[in-house]
Amino acid sequence: MTTDPADLTARLIRCPSVTPEEGGALTLLEAELSSAGFTCTRADRGGVANLLARWGDKGHPRTFGFNGHTDVVPVGDAAAWTVDPFGAEIRGGLMYGRGATDMKSGVAAFTAAAIDFVRDTPPDGAVILTITGDEEGDAIDGTSALLDHMARTGEAMTACLVGEPTCPDEMGEMIKIGRRGSLSAWFTFTGVQGHSAYPHRAKNPLPAMARLMDRLSSHTLDEGTDHFDASTLAVVTMDTGNPATNVIPAECRATVNIRFNDSHSGQGLTDWMRGMADTVTQETGIDIGMTVKISGESFLTPPGPLSDLVAAAVRAETGRDPVLSTSGGTSDARFIKDHCPVVEFGLVGKTMHQVDECVPVAQIHQLKAIYARILRDYFA
Amino acid sequence: MTTDPADLTARLIRCPSVTPEEGGALTLLEAELSSAGFTCTRADRGGVANLLARWGDKGHPRTFGFNGHTDVVPVGDAAAWTVDPFGAEIRGGLMYGRGATDMKSGVAAFTAAAIDFVRDTPPDGAVILTITGDEEGDAIDGTSALLDHMARTGEAMTACLVGEPTCPDEMGEMIKIGRRGSLSAWFTFTGVQGHSAYPHRAKNPLPAMARLMDRLSSHTLDEGTDHFDASTLAVVTMDTGNPATNVIPAECRATVNIRFNDSHSGQGLTDWMRGMADTVTQETGIDIGMTVKISGESFLTPPGPLSDLVAAAVRAETGRDPVLSTSGGTSDARFIKDHCPVVEFGLVGKTMHQVDECVPVAQIHQLKAIYARILRDYFA
Repeated sequence: MTTDPADLTARLIRCPSVTPEEGGALTLLEAELSSAGFTCTRADRGGVANLLARWGDKGHPRTFGFNGHTDVVPVGDAAAWTVDPFGAEIRGGLMYGRGATDMKSGVAAFTAAAIDFVRDTPPDGAVILTITGDEEGDAIDGTSALLDHMARTGEAMTACLVGEPTCPDEMGEMIKIGRRGSLSAWFTFTGVQGHSAYPHRAKNPLPAMARLMDRLSSHTLDEGTDHFDASTLAVVTMDTGNPATNVIPAECRATVNIRFNDSHSGQGLTDWMRGMADTVTQETGIDIGMTVKISGESFLTPPGPLSDLVAAAVRAETGRDPVLSTSGGTSDARFIKDHCPVVEFGLVGKTMHQVDECVPVAQIHQLKAIYARILRDYFA
Repeated sequence: MTTDPADLTARLIRCPSVTPEEGGALTLLEAELSSAGFTCTRADRGGVANLLARWGDKGHPRTFGFNGHTDVVPVGDAAAWTVDPFGAEIRGGLMYGRGATDMKSGVAAFTAAAIDFVRDTPPDGAVILTITGDEEGDAIDGTSALLDHMARTGEAMTACLVGEPTCPDEMGEMIKIGRRGSLSAWFTFTGVQGHSAYPHRAKNPLPAMARLMDRLSSHTLDEGTDHFDASTLAVVTMDTGNPATNVIPAECRATVNIRFNDSHSGQGLTDWMRGMADTVTQETGIDIGMTVKISGESFLTPPGPLSDLVAAAVRAETGRDPVLSTSGGTSDARFIKDHCPVVEFGLVGKTMHQVDECVPVAQIHQLKAIYARILRDYFA
């Protein structure tokens, strides 16, 4: 008897697990995995539910890990959906529901693959599943909490596959071997209020903001590296809120978001921005405050045994030769990379976060087959 | 018997004529001037009350005009006043109330001076008073309405004195012979919304705004002219309203205010900004919309007979040699300059628009004496 990943996906979709609600999803997985002989531990933290499931010996030097999340983004405009977002209805070979691609199908596929694999061909090693209830939110108490718990209790993975959707259009076309880093910087420009007719009696902070944002956005951070696209900087907002044309305001604010490759670090970019701001302060006399939040450093698992293993499985099951990419936003792989080599592979992500999110049922089965082959090859 | 300008000021302060309310102020003046032999006409327009009062023949080639307003700005924080803002209370030689300096005292002083002058020494000529109920508001139907009415009915002034407060600190130190022009420009920058992680798929309007505002505010418009300070450009607001660091917004907005001297025109500055915006559009691909409102062109009544006349009267009554200045914001002189030579002279403006606005009672009498001397010398 094999575990049906489509049926498991449907049951997960019917759990309304909008971040940070557990919604019954992790409880369902815990029950399935426990029955299959996995040792399950909840590593909940800060109101977030997290599940650690292990088959095999703790600390085994060959421990393959899967990582995923059961939380989903909100439904959005419910009236715009043509189906129940938590109904898992199947129409024309597509299963519909919030989380259908991102990523209850991925979690179901690796859970089903792991259950069948350890039952049918028990390996000399261990299989760990780390599944969090907060990847879509702040992710502070999600995969990080699982990894902290594992470090404390002697649990470790020797390699890890994150089951996020990675394919832009066609199943099997892309594996992610790294991600760009991301940081945001909030700037505050402080001058002295005054009358527009007497600008010499005021200190207008707006020209300083314009100049700094022009310089930051005009700067070429890099031209890309071996495995990464060029880093990008986006000014995402500039605000003042002064409705009066005869008033020079005392303060204005701007926010910048940087997606950076492995030629930068969050600290290096912070230092660079601080230096640019200091120059503008010298030129204009305007005080510039800056607060930086580094969401994640860039990371790369260089092409090697793990990416070869995953690529071979993808090739065997789909006939496609996957690209090794570092494109896109951040994922929980940014936390895992500090513990073991990590790559990401999953479904086509086209409908993720959208109305009528859906997944071809056949692809869920195909994804399970790929994950099963990865396990077989890893422990072969 | 002489007309007491302080008593008239007090009676005007007691009229609650906050723009656009007439508040009884023009009705009071109309009654006083009619009894004194002036021909009074109301040139009301658009809900604004305006008074035209003439002594002497219509269209006389020697017609001296005074201009002023009885409307006042709002009280503001009434609890912060230590007196009734419409009480005209006198304490320690100071008369308190909204409009005490701006400019019920000025209107009272020239009204009293004109009444006494035409009664005691009837001139070979005419005296016209143009007094509006909207100088502090949009001023669309104020002095402009009076001038339109005069043009239609054959009324004209050969010279005009505006009685606005003109002295920064000491009575008699400044006459205004011109004003800078003022315009505001509203810019809208339109791109294409997108995700911060994929800036190449979006068109971010913010760098275009930053660049244009940096260039406009860095530009030296001029170094000043014979009678004017340098023109100034102030960026007064830049706004986006995007709270999400992972979103590149589709639109942002900026507003600029320019105070310009006689080396520029509103149209010339509009053309210059449009050209600067077009260059940024060529560089960035961002559409830039621009709406301009010219509040007033700059103007100058070059030093000559009228300013000499006023300066001599100020010198005789105060012992001070007044500076001929073009500083400050706009005034209704910007409308009058298209009809006849115009200069401005009045009280110390320090407390105008403030809580506990007040005027030294002695200065009201002094101002009447200056205005009386101007009339005597003009018709001598």
